[in-house]
Amino acid sequence: MKKNQYAVIGLGRFGSSLSKELIKLGYEVLGIDKDEEAVDEMSSELTHTVVADSTDEEVLKSLGVRNFDCAVVAIGDDIQASILTAIVLKDLGVKMVVAKALSELHGKVLNKIGVDRVIYPERDMGIRVAHQLVSPNLLDYIELSKDYTIVELSVPKRLCGLSIKELDPRAKYGCSVVAINKKNGVIIAPMATDVVNEKDVMVIIGTNDQIEEFEHEVIR
Amino acid sequence: MKKNQYAVIGLGRFGSSLSKELIKLGYEVLGIDKDEEAVDEMSSELTHTVVADSTDEEVLKSLGVRNFDCAVVAIGDDIQASILTAIVLKDLGVKMVVAKALSELHGKVLNKIGVDRVIYPERDMGIRVAHQLVSPNLLDYIELSKDYTIVELSVPKRLCGLSIKELDPRAKYGCSVVAINKKNGVIIAPMATDVVNEKDVMVIIGTNDQIEEFEHEVIR
Amino acid sequence: MKKNQYAVIGLGRFGSSLSKELIKLGYEVLGIDKDEEAVDEMSSELTHTVVADSTDEEVLKSLGVRNFDCAVVAIGDDIQASILTAIVLKDLGVKMVVAKALSELHGKVLNKIGVDRVIYPERDMGIRVAHQLVSPNLLDYIELSKDYTIVELSVPKRLCGLSIKELDPRAKYGCSVVAINKKNGVIIAPMATDVVNEKDVMVIIGTNDQIEEFEHEVIR
Amino acid sequence: MKKNQYAVIGLGRFGSSLSKELIKLGYEVLGIDKDEEAVDEMSSELTHTVVADSTDEEVLKSLGVRNFDCAVVAIGDDIQASILTAIVLKDLGVKMVVAKALSELHGKVLNKIGVDRVIYPERDMGIRVAHQLVSPNLLDYIELSKDYTIVELSVPKRLCGLSIKELDPRAKYGCSVVAINKKNGVIIAPMATDVVNEKDVMVIIGTNDQIEEFEHEVIR
Amino acid sequence: MKKNQYAVIGLGRFGSSLSKELIKLGYEVLGIDKDEEAVDEMSSELTHTVVADSTDEEVLKSLGVRNFDCAVVAIGDDIQASILTAIVLKDLGVKMVVAKALSELHGKVLNKIGVDRVIYPERDMGIRVAHQLVSPNLLDYIELSKDYTIVELSVPKRLCGLSIKELDPRAKYGCSVVAINKKNGVIIAPMATDVVNEKDVMVIIGTNDQIEEFEHEVIR
Amino acid sequence: MKKNQYAVIGLGRFGSSLSKELIKLGYEVLGIDKDEEAVDEMSSELTHTVVADSTDEEVLKSLGVRNFDCAVVAIGDDIQASILTAIVLKDLGVKMVVAKALSELHGKVLNKIGVDRVIYPERDMGIRVAHQLVSPNLLDYIELSKDYTIVELSVPKRLCGLSIKELDPRAKYGCSVVAINKKNGVIIAPMATDVVNEKDVMVIIGTNDQIEEFEHEVIR
Amino acid sequence: MKKNQYAVIGLGRFGSSLSKELIKLGYEVLGIDKDEEAVDEMSSELTHTVVADSTDEEVLKSLGVRNFDCAVVAIGDDIQASILTAIVLKDLGVKMVVAKALSELHGKVLNKIGVDRVIYPERDMGIRVAHQLVSPNLLDYIELSKDYTIVELSVPKRLCGLSIKELDPRAKYGCSVVAINKKNGVIIAPMATDVVNEKDVMVIIGTNDQIEEFEHEVIR
Amino acid sequence: MKKNQYAVIGLGRFGSSLSKELIKLGYEVLGIDKDEEAVDEMSSELTHTVVADSTDEEVLKSLGVRNFDCAVVAIGDDIQASILTAIVLKDLGVKMVVAKALSELHGKVLNKIGVDRVIYPERDMGIRVAHQLVSPNLLDYIELSKDYTIVELSVPKRLCGLSIKELDPRAKYGCSVVAINKKNGVIIAPMATDVVNEKDVMVIIGTNDQIEEFEHEVIR
Repeated sequence: MKKNQYAVIGLGRFGSSLSKELIKLGYEVLGIDKDEEAVDEMSSELTHTVVADSTDEEVLKSLGVRNFDCAVVAIGDDIQASILTAIVLKDLGVKMVVAKALSELHGKVLNKIGVDRVIYPERDMGIRVAHQLVSPNLLDYIELSKDYTIVELSVPKRLCGLSIKELDPRAKYGCSVVAINKKNGVIIAPMATDVVNEKDVMVIIGTNDQIEEFEHEVIR
Repeated sequence: MKKNQYAVIGLGRFGSSLSKELIKLGYEVLGIDKDEEAVDEMSSELTHTVVADSTDEEVLKSLGVRNFDCAVVAIGDDIQASILTAIVLKDLGVKMVVAKALSELHGKVLNKIGVDRVIYPERDMGIRVAHQLVSPNLLDYIELSKDYTIVELSVPKRLCGLSIKELDPRAKYGCSVVAINKKNGVIIAPMATDVVNEKDVMVIIGTNDQIEEFEHEVIR
Repeated sequence: MKKNQYAVIGLGRFGSSLSKELIKLGYEVLGIDKDEEAVDEMSSELTHTVVADSTDEEVLKSLGVRNFDCAVVAIGDDIQASILTAIVLKDLGVKMVVAKALSELHGKVLNKIGVDRVIYPERDMGIRVAHQLVSPNLLDYIELSKDYTIVELSVPKRLCGLSIKELDPRAKYGCSVVAINKKNGVIIAPMATDVVNEKDVMVIIGTNDQIEEFEHEVIR
Repeated sequence: MKKNQYAVIGLGRFGSSLSKELIKLGYEVLGIDKDEEAVDEMSSELTHTVVADSTDEEVLKSLGVRNFDCAVVAIGDDIQASILTAIVLKDLGVKMVVAKALSELHGKVLNKIGVDRVIYPERDMGIRVAHQLVSPNLLDYIELSKDYTIVELSVPKRLCGLSIKELDPRAKYGCSVVAINKKNGVIIAPMATDVVNEKDVMVIIGTNDQIEEFEHEVIR
Repeated sequence: MKKNQYAVIGLGRFGSSLSKELIKLGYEVLGIDKDEEAVDEMSSELTHTVVADSTDEEVLKSLGVRNFDCAVVAIGDDIQASILTAIVLKDLGVKMVVAKALSELHGKVLNKIGVDRVIYPERDMGIRVAHQLVSPNLLDYIELSKDYTIVELSVPKRLCGLSIKELDPRAKYGCSVVAINKKNGVIIAPMATDVVNEKDVMVIIGTNDQIEEFEHEVIR
Repeated sequence: MKKNQYAVIGLGRFGSSLSKELIKLGYEVLGIDKDEEAVDEMSSELTHTVVADSTDEEVLKSLGVRNFDCAVVAIGDDIQASILTAIVLKDLGVKMVVAKALSELHGKVLNKIGVDRVIYPERDMGIRVAHQLVSPNLLDYIELSKDYTIVELSVPKRLCGLSIKELDPRAKYGCSVVAINKKNGVIIAPMATDVVNEKDVMVIIGTNDQIEEFEHEVIR
Repeated sequence: MKKNQYAVIGLGRFGSSLSKELIKLGYEVLGIDKDEEAVDEMSSELTHTVVADSTDEEVLKSLGVRNFDCAVVAIGDDIQASILTAIVLKDLGVKMVVAKALSELHGKVLNKIGVDRVIYPERDMGIRVAHQLVSPNLLDYIELSKDYTIVELSVPKRLCGLSIKELDPRAKYGCSVVAINKKNGVIIAPMATDVVNEKDVMVIIGTNDQIEEFEHEVIR
Repeated sequence: MKKNQYAVIGLGRFGSSLSKELIKLGYEVLGIDKDEEAVDEMSSELTHTVVADSTDEEVLKSLGVRNFDCAVVAIGDDIQASILTAIVLKDLGVKMVVAKALSELHGKVLNKIGVDRVIYPERDMGIRVAHQLVSPNLLDYIELSKDYTIVELSVPKRLCGLSIKELDPRAKYGCSVVAINKKNGVIIAPMATDVVNEKDVMVIIGTNDQIEEFEHEVIR
């Protein structure tokens, strides 16, 4: 199966991190930025890099951007350039156009002009970091629904040597232990006799209330 | 138990999103920015807001920042202001100082001057979005270790009506279904007879290879 | 019958001329610009004037713009402000939103976000002036279709005293004289015996070729 | 007959639209702008293009501008450059100098220094658009005199199938139907039995009052 | 006899020197500049001073500038402001408008728009200083015609004690001594026996050649 | 006799006018300016021109400026560059350094650092123009002393045909007619029977009071 | 005895450090800067502080600067302001004017206009730091003449417990120990039996060569 | 013994003075600045000079800076560049990193990131100059401890011809004469019969109080 090709327009912090991860995942990436320095820094990392004004339809056409499976508009602070680039990309017939929005209004315009997916990296990251700040043991989480969450919690020193049975989150709080990440491997669906140690990480699933209670009373 | 108080310095897109989420989670937040407009926009959302130059020790002292449990330096693009603010906060004795870094070098300086946690929102969000781009059904994920991941995958139309037994990821690919998020609730640890429908979301745990194979052969 | 109310956003040369003409035609006009000087100059001419940032939804809401029959986005050179203002106006539910475009691409975005009518004043005026330059006697014209035009031609000295019969555009060139504008009044559908004099203006209808031939051979 | 040659100085939106229309009408155009990018964009469209400072008499002389039949000063926002260019052109002996004015005062100066025709594109377009806004069926118009106008009106759905006799604008309102523009051609001086259909366009001549009354009572 | 009133627009080095000299000569002067600091510095020296934008007709009208006998446009470096101010002044009906030109082209425009007298202070002063540099004894001069000049020459030490007869410029060089400026008074039409001393100044009239020869052979 | 060589530093309006006049008077001029455009414009007019930073001693040394008889610092608006250039010139041993001052304070510094002659062109020209404004017939003048002046007055129409005897300035006002400049030549020391005509110019010598009275009562 | 009063103009890093030291030494200091923020920061440290433009003679006069014993021109980067301030101070009759120079040329001008003492802080500090860098044990030094120096050297661990006699710099290297600075006091003119310990500091006098040899062979 | 090599980053007034002194002391110096002009001026003075951005780790690595014994960060006004350069230098493993601080806060950051020595040239020079200002005869000094100082005092005219015995600072004030610097050489540890003359310089050691008293009563 032929792997997808990505065009990433805007090689700032977000765009260059995204580009490098795509390369790491095994995909081809064309990086475009109007700033020569930004392009220079990424030229050895990406498949192709070009210094170009992405709001100029002729330029994008001549780069063959229409043949890419997906184009990401990761332009930093220039809302106008972001919108004009996105519409050129849709006009050129790029199947999947993803664009970063700087505000709700910007996102609304991007949706209206046909962008397939609008992302708000700073807003989303702000939310994610807020959760980690208030729960110091929270390493990461997935919000499954309005009510349910999966959380990854580091095990505090104080609980070392206790078994799942002793902790018993299901009986006491209603939430289940999905996995324990231990130094020497991950135990999926751990048994009641499995013991947690320092630096272990527990993955718990449950309702927000169950998890919050468990976290407050047991983990902290 | 008295709830923590947070000072957030820098009310750009990241800082204001983080502040608002902290408020939503029930905490008190003091927002500080040197730009009046940025402060005005947040004044009705946060507990307190102040227009101030955060690199001026006297100012932060007079705001009582030393009594906050945690201060977040979310300054946008001014590396100098970020570093000077962070050192003032540590000097004032703030227990937990979290700071956003714009580059590896910036992050290294923040670590050296005693910042408790350095975060790279744009870099991390770039990585996260890259994963979602290459797996269109991937909604979210937690990287448990170098090898293991939990993924949240939307169920494609094509699979509707199949039971876990028929999909049988454990037998064929080695990964387990942790939960199914259905319109009317989340099924934790689903049974073999549970059936997936359109718009359902499956939560799968396994090694990266197991999940990638399952995703490519079954989900896509 | 209650007369329409217009909101004109952007009081540059185009916007202020449009506003003043609407007032002259008997309508109420609210003029909005973020530049205080521009607003000051128009404050005695329009029904209401406000210094405001039109990309701020709250501001437009508080001005009651949603109740206007028509809003014209006449913003000068700021494509971003033009687009964001237009989407706010459509979001507020303004029935008729007209916007000035600075380029084809800008116009395309305006159309996509739901602007009801996109105008290109400089481009249209450029075309109009081009026609007048190449035909010095051409005062004004209406392009009826790709082939047919109505033109307003000043009568050159050389033709003074000739009757319509003597000029006979219908017989010789196939185009008809719709009217003659004379110092003391307009003659509609003039008769063969009507005579043209200096400073008279003839209104001719016909195909582009007919009119061009008539103009070249008779008028010039 | 040798066709006229035009020099257009200033290739902004107005100047470039005018230049392109002149080319379309079959004339040769020399485009001049001091901005390289503006010149580049037009270089494939016009007969000749030059990057030059038009206020430098030596430059215009060396370009042979004195031999052009007409020069248009379409400089965007720089009143000083506009005035100095115009006086250089008159000094060089260009027969016909047309210049765009940004304000009444600017226009007055242009007249005083001998410019043959001063145009106010934004002001004129503002007036034209105002008329179209207040009469939604008004497509275009020619102001014949203070009292008489020719208007081009789209026929509303409601009137479809009516004959000129039934509409009878001459008897009821005093204005005459000059032509009907139908999908398959233009009917000049239509007969009483001619019928209007949807998407037809009527051309009406009359006094402003007659047309306004007809438009309000019949067309709207 | 009522003394003239002057309006001086532009209070830079030239305008402020001119204004102060007019005051010294006993006239009333209204000084106008758009720069507050420039106005402040002159406020105690002139009859009236105003901070105002002189290109705004309403402003000049409200200041009653039309009633002044003479207005001097001494604007420093802004050609556009100079031209627009001058045309406003002529429109207001100021009898005598004098304006400083920065270049030949600027001067030509000022003449065309009706300025009564155009002056080139830097150019004229450059010429005057050049003459003084090449003739170190030349204090001042009046160019009477292409051929004739009156010069004011300081008497060098070497000639002290000589009488007009001994110097005899008329006989030897053809030029006449009009006056001798001595410490204790001016001798008009000196006699042959009058003697020159150190620090005396001779006023000589003659053709350029006569004076140059006299100066080279006698004075230097 | 070898003619002097001049270096002129600063080729603005004053410097370039002075340079050109020196060339016209037959001298060699080296023109220096740090602005390439200014140098380009003068390169065909002066003996040598150089783009250089005149505050750099090495540069002036390498240009051999020390061998020039006279250097004129005609730098436009940069007081610092003017002072530093002047001191470099004196350090290099240039015999005669003349410098233009922008203010009294600037002039004082120039004097202190050893500049041989400080000139104030705008101030002096302001004074000269003031005199010409208040006496419309005054063409030029030389101030001989605090009390005595020579003036060049145009003869008004009204006096045409009168003889010196009839005008008799000596008897009535105490001032003498030094010369009459007539279309066909200058009459030096005119006789009582010489008659003045329109467009003639009289040169008068006398005290300020005598001349003012004569001018007010006879000439105006 | 009445203590001197100092005016310090320019409150940057150098000026404010100097001012504060003068205060510490018991003198009165008037601090002047045109930057409000700079003045605010020093207002509680100095006797008086004023926001003022020091190149304005009237301002300095009204502040009574002429009555100060000494004025220091410590202006940061503005050579023009430094020169003009210095000449105003000398004109006002300030007895002692000290000024900081940014370059040799600047210093030369300051000397010429009568500044009593010109200092080059960055240059002098660069020299001082260079000496300390190359001799890590060198704490401070006084250059007595081209040949002789007094140095303050920290005693390295290795020499602890040795007596002056054992070190014997006079006999071996020709330089003398002036003093030993010990934790509990300074021994002036130490005797042969005095012993040096860790953290002691020796003050040595001698020729540069003697000291260099002693330092290299004994101290390092 | 191989001599040390120094890298000096930032070639402003402080950095270039320090570099030149190191060269004079016989060391090799690599000068780095991002400003080409600054580098050009020093290129003939230092061993090597490079135009480079010192915050770019790759650049410093490729210059081999890690092999230098000592690097001095003498960056003028850019705190961010100073901090980032310093951390790169420490990361590269440079043994001795010295950095100039612009403020206490800046210095604190430099210390935290591992800079070996932080210097405050403007602050230190301000203190040094303050001492010299208040004691006009004080040429230089070394602060030995909180209480003891060595001072270098010029001998006033008034004391010429007096012997050390007659001055007798030890008996009267408690301080000792370490040396007398005379035109023809330095007398170390002068005898009671040694006489001071004009332009001699005395080096005195003692407590601050002793020296101050001696200076006030004898020297001034």
